[in-house]
Amino acid sequence: MEYKTISFGLKELEGRDSYRLMASLVTPRPIGWISTMGKDGSVNLAPFSFYNAVSGRPPTLLISLSPREGVEKDTLRNCRETGEFAASVVDASLAEKMNETARNCPYGVNEFELAGLTQAPSVEIKPPWVAEAKAAMEAKVTQIIPIEGSTSVMILGRVVHFHLREGLLKPDWTADTELLNPLGRLGRDYYTTLGRVFRMPQPD
Amino acid sequence: MEYKTISFGLKELEGRDSYRLMASLVTPRPIGWISTMGKDGSVNLAPFSFYNAVSGRPPTLLISLSPREGVEKDTLRNCRETGEFAASVVDASLAEKMNETARNCPYGVNEFELAGLTQAPSVEIKPPWVAEAKAAMEAKVTQIIPIEGSTSVMILGRVVHFHLREGLLKPDWTADTELLNPLGRLGRDYYTTLGRVFRMPQPD
Repeated sequence: MEYKTISFGLKELEGRDSYRLMASLVTPRPIGWISTMGKDGSVNLAPFSFYNAVSGRPPTLLISLSPREGVEKDTLRNCRETGEFAASVVDASLAEKMNETARNCPYGVNEFELAGLTQAPSVEIKPPWVAEAKAAMEAKVTQIIPIEGSTSVMILGRVVHFHLREGLLKPDWTADTELLNPLGRLGRDYYTTLGRVFRMPQPD
Repeated sequence: MEYKTISFGLKELEGRDSYRLMASLVTPRPIGWISTMGKDGSVNLAPFSFYNAVSGRPPTLLISLSPREGVEKDTLRNCRETGEFAASVVDASLAEKMNETARNCPYGVNEFELAGLTQAPSVEIKPPWVAEAKAAMEAKVTQIIPIEGSTSVMILGRVVHFHLREGLLKPDWTADTELLNPLGRLGRDYYTTLGRVFRMPQPD
């Protein structure tokens, strides 16, 4: 079958948004609901979908952040100040609350309070995780890396502690994804729930 | 409502696989179907789910790779040698073919041929993209960054060219994700299609 393909370079996009286009082609993205604490003790919570695992051993998470209106985001400021974050899992039932925490607030505003969420105490780090989430990971920042030619910065953190709601951990010590029911981020303001879930073992 | 939560640190996981557990909690992950070329002209194609966008301006993609049996993966070797990659989108109809390209092959084996896929010529880079894919991006490697304490390495690449099948580009210059129908990676060997897709604009 023959298909017609549209091809264009960055130059032909001039004036269009290459960011939105790229983000719509890298989907579905996982959402890290990241809580941090400033050296003044203030708590921040915000969702990120430029978020992923990047190393298995040791377990390492990555968040990439761009400044908002020229100002470093609170999550980055706090990671620089105290070097810790918790990543809670956003499931479909928490979509609206997650979105509430994406609001642009002055430094020091606690988005847990803003969205009516409960702070669950962490074990190995100071920032709390989201008690309403079915799972969360505590992480210690190991690297903060600027992206060349960009104002974005990547934060890497080593996972040191796991929290899972009872019943979620399978006998193989992975989370039951269908029970977890995570939300995925698509392009622009679109989200997806899980669809048809199937297993496909990797060939040798 | 009260829930019981199971909490444990890395030490209590001793002997279990923290990697698999973390990967099952960072879901759904996008899949980058990455094609590269060695300096000898050999072509490689492999899927990665430690893959995401990390910067909007300029549009930048990240792939994180661990060695296989102590040996650097062909994708990393080729990116070091020639500094370019294409990222094709894996949609649900291409699941089996994608999985075929995950096979562990000696350097120089062309996974396009192995899986019966067609090499579509790129415009600004040498590695071809997957003609059967509905969309692809050409990228030039800008940074190769080791992860501290890990054998994994992150490759960053700037997107320089886009390919989209006709009908996929919406008037707002993003891809129609439901037409694209991308596959997401879950824990272990599990995958998901899109589920319920909905819009939720970010509050001010």
